[in-house]
Amino acid sequence: MRRPLVTLTTDFGTASVYVAAMKGALLATASDVDIVDLTHEIPPQDVRAAALFLRDALPYFPPGVIHMAVVDPGVGSDRAALLIENAGSLILAPDNGIWTVAAPSPDRVWRLKQPRRLLRSVSATFHGRDVFAPLAGRLAGGATPDEVGEPITNWCRVELPRPTVKGAVLFGEVIHVDRFGNLITNLVIAPEPYHLRLGDRRIEVVRTYSDRPAGSLVALVGSNEFIEIAVVNGSAANLLGTAVGASVELRPGLVS
Amino acid sequence: MRRPLVTLTTDFGTASVYVAAMKGALLATASDVDIVDLTHEIPPQDVRAAALFLRDALPYFPPGVIHMAVVDPGVGSDRAALLIENAGSLILAPDNGIWTVAAPSPDRVWRLKQPRRLLRSVSATFHGRDVFAPLAGRLAGGATPDEVGEPITNWCRVELPRPTVKGAVLFGEVIHVDRFGNLITNLVIAPEPYHLRLGDRRIEVVRTYSDRPAGSLVALVGSNEFIEIAVVNGSAANLLGTAVGASVELRPGLVS
Amino acid sequence: MRRPLVTLTTDFGTASVYVAAMKGALLATASDVDIVDLTHEIPPQDVRAAALFLRDALPYFPPGVIHMAVVDPGVGSDRAALLIENAGSLILAPDNGIWTVAAPSPDRVWRLKQPRRLLRSVSATFHGRDVFAPLAGRLAGGATPDEVGEPITNWCRVELPRPTVKGAVLFGEVIHVDRFGNLITNLVIAPEPYHLRLGDRRIEVVRTYSDRPAGSLVALVGSNEFIEIAVVNGSAANLLGTAVGASVELRPGLVS
Repeated sequence: MRRPLVTLTTDFGTASVYVAAMKGALLATASDVDIVDLTHEIPPQDVRAAALFLRDALPYFPPGVIHMAVVDPGVGSDRAALLIENAGSLILAPDNGIWTVAAPSPDRVWRLKQPRRLLRSVSATFHGRDVFAPLAGRLAGGATPDEVGEPITNWCRVELPRPTVKGAVLFGEVIHVDRFGNLITNLVIAPEPYHLRLGDRRIEVVRTYSDRPAGSLVALVGSNEFIEIAVVNGSAANLLGTAVGASVELRPGLVS
Repeated sequence: MRRPLVTLTTDFGTASVYVAAMKGALLATASDVDIVDLTHEIPPQDVRAAALFLRDALPYFPPGVIHMAVVDPGVGSDRAALLIENAGSLILAPDNGIWTVAAPSPDRVWRLKQPRRLLRSVSATFHGRDVFAPLAGRLAGGATPDEVGEPITNWCRVELPRPTVKGAVLFGEVIHVDRFGNLITNLVIAPEPYHLRLGDRRIEVVRTYSDRPAGSLVALVGSNEFIEIAVVNGSAANLLGTAVGASVELRPGLVS
Repeated sequence: MRRPLVTLTTDFGTASVYVAAMKGALLATASDVDIVDLTHEIPPQDVRAAALFLRDALPYFPPGVIHMAVVDPGVGSDRAALLIENAGSLILAPDNGIWTVAAPSPDRVWRLKQPRRLLRSVSATFHGRDVFAPLAGRLAGGATPDEVGEPITNWCRVELPRPTVKGAVLFGEVIHVDRFGNLITNLVIAPEPYHLRLGDRRIEVVRTYSDRPAGSLVALVGSNEFIEIAVVNGSAANLLGTAVGASVELRPGLVS
């Protein structure tokens, strides 16, 4: 039998003490649990970046996991703490939409009752440690969502920016730049021949990096199904100086 | 039954091999143990920063844990390796005071006997791997502190800088800047109305971030009970250009 | 009995989603496994840096471990995925030589059969998630290398740069700069008196950092047996402005 498994996704960074304190609070509540770090490097308070991250991470996990997702610019306000049942797993998150791209049609959603009862004292600034970690611990220990929450049917949502269409052209944008300098767009490609435009560059769409020699600028369908712009064995971000939000266009036809 | 749990706090970074080798040496000694990374991003050789980190992390953990804390500018000298029993857990650390802010009144302290017997060979530069990890493994496997150490009653201490008082004014300083750009001070607030001064700025003290609109500069009692200076949904460090060591004053009365 | 243990060494970074998705794919295949992060900060696509990292990490682990090492500039090409048996453990890695410095004389090597059968779909850009993680999970669950691979006797190799000898002088180079600013060279010292030259500086060889006062520039045999250049309680990289590839010389005799 697997031990309860809790994953952590935050914007805390690992240089400050927040991740450590949250792990401590979790382990103090759950006597026997596996903790798996997903990331603590979400850009500070960037709920949309976290939503994209969870979209591309959670589908690969098995059911039965407790996913904590704490990017929480509204901490200390009266925003609710949510429990979400989705695909056989639970997500614990503030009610700011962080989980809604990964789980647009959840099975059930609860709002945490009486968060101040979970821990002796709840700070005004750190609910990751004082609310979500003890809650994850109680759930790992066998508590049910109905014991700690009340069902709700409305919650905040965030959405990734959607491409717009004019004629045969799709207008999108860069939504993430990864460590390799690949520019991840919000465009999903159709089977017909297309090419990409970024500024005045026309970029051909290939199947994989190794289809072109090192140093080539290419576009391809990335591992999260979005089109990404890459330099083979290099960095498109360095070559193009492009960041999140840059406009891209998907146009029919091959690069002439 | 929980497996033995070992936490790691170091200044090794994660880009070099030191964390990996230390984990290997631990797992080679302990056949069945959980490893929890607290941080490896303590500023290099900054024992005081590590002491503050442990102060804010260790109280949240349950008893029965083995905490390894290796920030060790004196490695290779004859500084002792210590075992500290505190609040039902053990801390393993070099004798440079790193643990003394988190555990100012420990239950018992031992000095490691014959460190060179623990591993085949002990390097002159890497006791995290060659001394502390095998020691943690032996303790996780059931060895007692008395078997590996001899009790001592004197050890090095470090202290956080203390505020000074002149009349009704407290003079403190910034002791940490977190990933959100919050400036953590060494000031603890009294219940009376106070405001903070940093340079020629007067900063009001609020209860939580969401008491003021985004972009506001505020002070508040942070999750570690120290007063911190923050920009709501922004970065006080970026706004003020302030780093560890900057002077702050806590003065009675509201911001006029 | 220990649970199966899988270590992860990649160049994915922790800010992007790749580590998270790979862990999910592993846990979806293996119902009960410990995951230990070694590093995700190998410089992007730097197979030689990863080879050095594994050389200095893997020998400290006990036998019976599954080590995943995914730095994979050739992803999507027809480069093979390998299973390597070495010292009682398994290494899973692309066939680019990444493992060959750590395990120059492996016991057995297999090439993965039918990688496309492992997961429903294998992306063209992310075999860490789609090939290596499910493979590690199957092996953790009891599959044998012979069930998933076919034995091979030829594979790609990388080597660390070797020093050259002219007369009594060894000419080497800096092969890694660690978080402390220590410059790790590819030189292994002989017992006779030697000193090091870097540019026009002559650097004495000492036993350990604490042999000299803070701020001293010294050379010493580091924890991985290579000679490294260090500033006691400081950063040689900052003092000298030196990076990977810089030339160093080991010359007989003391610094005069």
